[in-house]
Amino acid sequence: MAVSPSGRDAALAASGAFPPSERMVLGAETPMPLDCGVALGPFTIAYRTYGRLNAERSNAVLICHALTGDQYVADTHPVTGRPGWWSNLVGSGRIVDTDKYFVICSNVIGGCMGSAGPATVDPATGRPFGLDFPVITIADMVRAQKLLVDALGIDQLFAVIGGSMGGMQVLQWAAAYPEKVFAAVPIATAARHSAQNIAFHEVGRQAVLADPDWHGGAYHDHGTVPRRGLAVARMAAHITYLSEPALHRKFGRNLQDRKAVSFGFDADFQVESYLRHQGITFVERFDANSYLYITRAMDYFDLAAEHGGGSLAAAFKGTPVRFCVVSFTSDWLFPTAESRAVVHALNSVAANVSFVEVATDKGHDAFLLEEPEFHRVLAGFLDGCAEKRGLTSRRQPLPADHPDRLAAMTAERWRPQDGRVDFKLIAGMVEPGSRVFDVGCGDGALLDILVHERGVDGRGLELDQDGVHRAVKAGLPVVQGDADTDLAEYPSDAFDYVILSQTLQAMRNPREALAQLVRIGRRAIVSFPNFGHWRVRAALTLRGRMPVTSRLSYTWYETPNIHFCTIDDFEALCAEMGIVVERRVVLGPRGRQIASGRFDNLLGEQGVFLLRRPG
Amino acid sequence: MAVSPSGRDAALAASGAFPPSERMVLGAETPMPLDCGVALGPFTIAYRTYGRLNAERSNAVLICHALTGDQYVADTHPVTGRPGWWSNLVGSGRIVDTDKYFVICSNVIGGCMGSAGPATVDPATGRPFGLDFPVITIADMVRAQKLLVDALGIDQLFAVIGGSMGGMQVLQWAAAYPEKVFAAVPIATAARHSAQNIAFHEVGRQAVLADPDWHGGAYHDHGTVPRRGLAVARMAAHITYLSEPALHRKFGRNLQDRKAVSFGFDADFQVESYLRHQGITFVERFDANSYLYITRAMDYFDLAAEHGGGSLAAAFKGTPVRFCVVSFTSDWLFPTAESRAVVHALNSVAANVSFVEVATDKGHDAFLLEEPEFHRVLAGFLDGCAEKRGLTSRRQPLPADHPDRLAAMTAERWRPQDGRVDFKLIAGMVEPGSRVFDVGCGDGALLDILVHERGVDGRGLELDQDGVHRAVKAGLPVVQGDADTDLAEYPSDAFDYVILSQTLQAMRNPREALAQLVRIGRRAIVSFPNFGHWRVRAALTLRGRMPVTSRLSYTWYETPNIHFCTIDDFEALCAEMGIVVERRVVLGPRGRQIASGRFDNLLGEQGVFLLRRPG
Repeated sequence: MAVSPSGRDAALAASGAFPPSERMVLGAETPMPLDCGVALGPFTIAYRTYGRLNAERSNAVLICHALTGDQYVADTHPVTGRPGWWSNLVGSGRIVDTDKYFVICSNVIGGCMGSAGPATVDPATGRPFGLDFPVITIADMVRAQKLLVDALGIDQLFAVIGGSMGGMQVLQWAAAYPEKVFAAVPIATAARHSAQNIAFHEVGRQAVLADPDWHGGAYHDHGTVPRRGLAVARMAAHITYLSEPALHRKFGRNLQDRKAVSFGFDADFQVESYLRHQGITFVERFDANSYLYITRAMDYFDLAAEHGGGSLAAAFKGTPVRFCVVSFTSDWLFPTAESRAVVHALNSVAANVSFVEVATDKGHDAFLLEEPEFHRVLAGFLDGCAEKRGLTSRRQPLPADHPDRLAAMTAERWRPQDGRVDFKLIAGMVEPGSRVFDVGCGDGALLDILVHERGVDGRGLELDQDGVHRAVKAGLPVVQGDADTDLAEYPSDAFDYVILSQTLQAMRNPREALAQLVRIGRRAIVSFPNFGHWRVRAALTLRGRMPVTSRLSYTWYETPNIHFCTIDDFEALCAEMGIVVERRVVLGPRGRQIASGRFDNLLGEQGVFLLRRPG
Repeated sequence: MAVSPSGRDAALAASGAFPPSERMVLGAETPMPLDCGVALGPFTIAYRTYGRLNAERSNAVLICHALTGDQYVADTHPVTGRPGWWSNLVGSGRIVDTDKYFVICSNVIGGCMGSAGPATVDPATGRPFGLDFPVITIADMVRAQKLLVDALGIDQLFAVIGGSMGGMQVLQWAAAYPEKVFAAVPIATAARHSAQNIAFHEVGRQAVLADPDWHGGAYHDHGTVPRRGLAVARMAAHITYLSEPALHRKFGRNLQDRKAVSFGFDADFQVESYLRHQGITFVERFDANSYLYITRAMDYFDLAAEHGGGSLAAAFKGTPVRFCVVSFTSDWLFPTAESRAVVHALNSVAANVSFVEVATDKGHDAFLLEEPEFHRVLAGFLDGCAEKRGLTSRRQPLPADHPDRLAAMTAERWRPQDGRVDFKLIAGMVEPGSRVFDVGCGDGALLDILVHERGVDGRGLELDQDGVHRAVKAGLPVVQGDADTDLAEYPSDAFDYVILSQTLQAMRNPREALAQLVRIGRRAIVSFPNFGHWRVRAALTLRGRMPVTSRLSYTWYETPNIHFCTIDDFEALCAEMGIVVERRVVLGPRGRQIASGRFDNLLGEQGVFLLRRPG
């Protein structure tokens, strides 16, 4: 099947009205096999590139667009005249810096901006393919991109980045061609399309199919466009891209150019007027059949079924790819649970993964909008990977006692003056080159020491978004999550050491946490402040007040430390749980080690324990 | 405007195929004014009744139906042949027991099951009104119901109950005719239609309007029905009635009667097939113009704007109505925040309100389905109200030390053997007949004592669903909520006494809680276990272990008591906050009062404080 550019796009390009897409004819010698069984070729891919490929060909970034996006990621759109859809992120001096990276963005096959799709003219008939175009999948889109990347002479992409359907393509790239992807950033996406999302797509398709102007997909032959149906489809879909709070903030119940409701079916409310506008403008730039094809490709996407025999983890087994997964709190089309499922699968095969859930009320569309926290995380991750890939020089880690680190690290649970005397001790307990998981890792200060000084393969878990952001920026793989609930997700024996440093006393369920630590890790290292210290006892006994000491510096009503214990309490719990204490170190004033003895529980300010499970 | 039954309904009734609706012609002498400015009358209301009105005419329950519901609440639907839409709840021996209550359910005006609406034949033209029917509002629907209830000779409804749009009518009844409503149960609803919900309605309307068979609303004249448009509208709406988890549980990505996807646009997935079926069957039983009218009525609903000059609280000021507000956790069409806004408004005018958020994955439709927790709460509330209304004999409260009470009350924070020796003391501190708010009220044991023994006007706040259910069942107005976050919602000086009994130590932010208590109440009564008791000190000092005593009976790692304090700590905090301690009682072993003295903090097991704010 030979495919040429769609008429409108070609005409616009020929008129010089916009920077034309580059075009590549692929599959000419060997047609590309599609999932549906048909082979496609020769066929055209329309794409845009920005920046220059370096001599090592190691700086290429592939951007994957979403359902109604296209290749105009960073320059003016030829039809709408609006800036590229991700021009806030991609460009000279931007986060995806075109002075530094060679950025590629191609229109997906099935699309309507120059790549092969149902609007493409069938040379055999001289008419658009319409429904004769084969139904394609996300995997087919990525196959075509792979041919394009190969043809551009790029052996490995530095990064593949995309949101929504673009994120599906990122996951597909990582699963199908792991050796071709150095880093992957799937944003606001899922490893399979949910039942609810299939349902919304079906409503959109039925709206198009119900339009008499659709003519069974052959509307080009009838000189019609199924405008009304496609507009209704777009209106329904557009609601799912936003969020209730965002709609409330933007429109509320405000009326459109009137002081009172009309008691009729006009667009009384601003939100109605806005939606109608979305429907009308969409029809001007998008092909109705492409809408059917691309929504169908998303419906069919199920990475676990395709690559893992039903297990998402199996789809990523042994992956060398560095992942940065991003979700948004108010995204209900691709909710955080979908991203967590990906992170969970990656964790369970010990992949290198960072994950951030960005707090925003902007809904699914947040990935396209100004979201400083998202942008900071992406910048940090790309910078860290660029360093690892040798695109930039190696960053020197901040010293562990650098004020910038301590300030962030200690904001939640600990105060700067407390210092982190346990870090050095913990680092000494860890075998060089081992696999380490730091639970409650803050901004990754300890992890950074372990990675740089002990050469460990380190991972972190942290609840605080600011901490996660700093760690990811420092190139450390850290997952945002709640240790009280998320540890159960990790497989047994996933790490050589699991560290819980000064966090136990702030957890809701310390006993359960301890059980998880020795399950996930072959060893666990736990440090905590000792409530049995003589100053604590004295405060309570002699003064009759809840103790406030230099080490336990919060008052009773504001302390985040909700489950205090003494060294003896902790040892008794270990004994009760059958946990073996391999090593025990007690620290006194100024972090000095106390010779182990019967007064540990009285003199120790902190305990540091090396543990393993029984047997 | 004279309005007669719609043709289809009348024909079915005449054929004897189903129990015909009663019908009433209203507004014959004085046409009923509508919000749009038109007067309607004479017009027909079609309704069903079940059970018998008692001699006092005090047992009438009005059920209000939702968008696509009708009067067939408890018997077979004439068109679909399916059981009444709430027959699991309404009927002989059911929760809304037709052996006990006289149940009325009328088809709303604007509807298509016999009440006046756009499908009604205009006697002037002999054709259906179509878009010439006046646009109606929720208030108009309720006005018509009020005329019906008046005509039935009922002066006050025992209860008005409804979900979704039915809940809007319940709120409208309570706001417009407070003296006509003894109890109101608004379920899964909102006091105003949100921007997102208006948007979804607009999509549905646009789908109908886009259908060429709609003919500007005059489809009856053309012998057509806008089937495709109405089906698309219904499909989109139907998704919003469910939830992502429910769709996942019911359908997941299961295929419909096939082993592999078809690579086409058939209904490959079960969820597609299900949705298409929903669309098709809906068209058989519902009128497209009615769909436009009723969605518009919901869009226009904004109780605060209509009744409160913008303030929802003002709409309910001085209301004598007893409210039971219910929401469902997975309902994203009318999320819990909407119900909380209603509860908040009712609280701020010191109304009698209970509120429960029922945990379910069934989405908005949960109010129509088998939800035992919802049904238990509704039963408890109606039973309590029936007693107050004199429909049933008065229940004897369980003694405070009854095992059933203690078991529930103490499950979370306290153990049965601890007893509740502070209850009697607290009751003695409260002036008879005062207004009391019990924060963390459990199942209402203390509240029950206060109401029955001190004659107070009592309210409760409790996080635990089981506790709330037991309290509501006992006829106590209790709101489900989190004291750590919700106290800020209550107005200042709303109560004479706010009680926090044995809860302070389990709160996340005790200092903030204390500030709220003395703001909301003119007095606060706080009781808590004393961490300064000598047994506690001894356990820590002599044994070096976190104390486990008969009164502090949890181990350190499982205790829900996360912010312990001593009596001295508490007094110091009060002093720091400028809170006046009006009375202080210290309880020793077996709840015996200790003569106040310098050893209180050593000998006291519990402290009970009567507080007020400075000035």
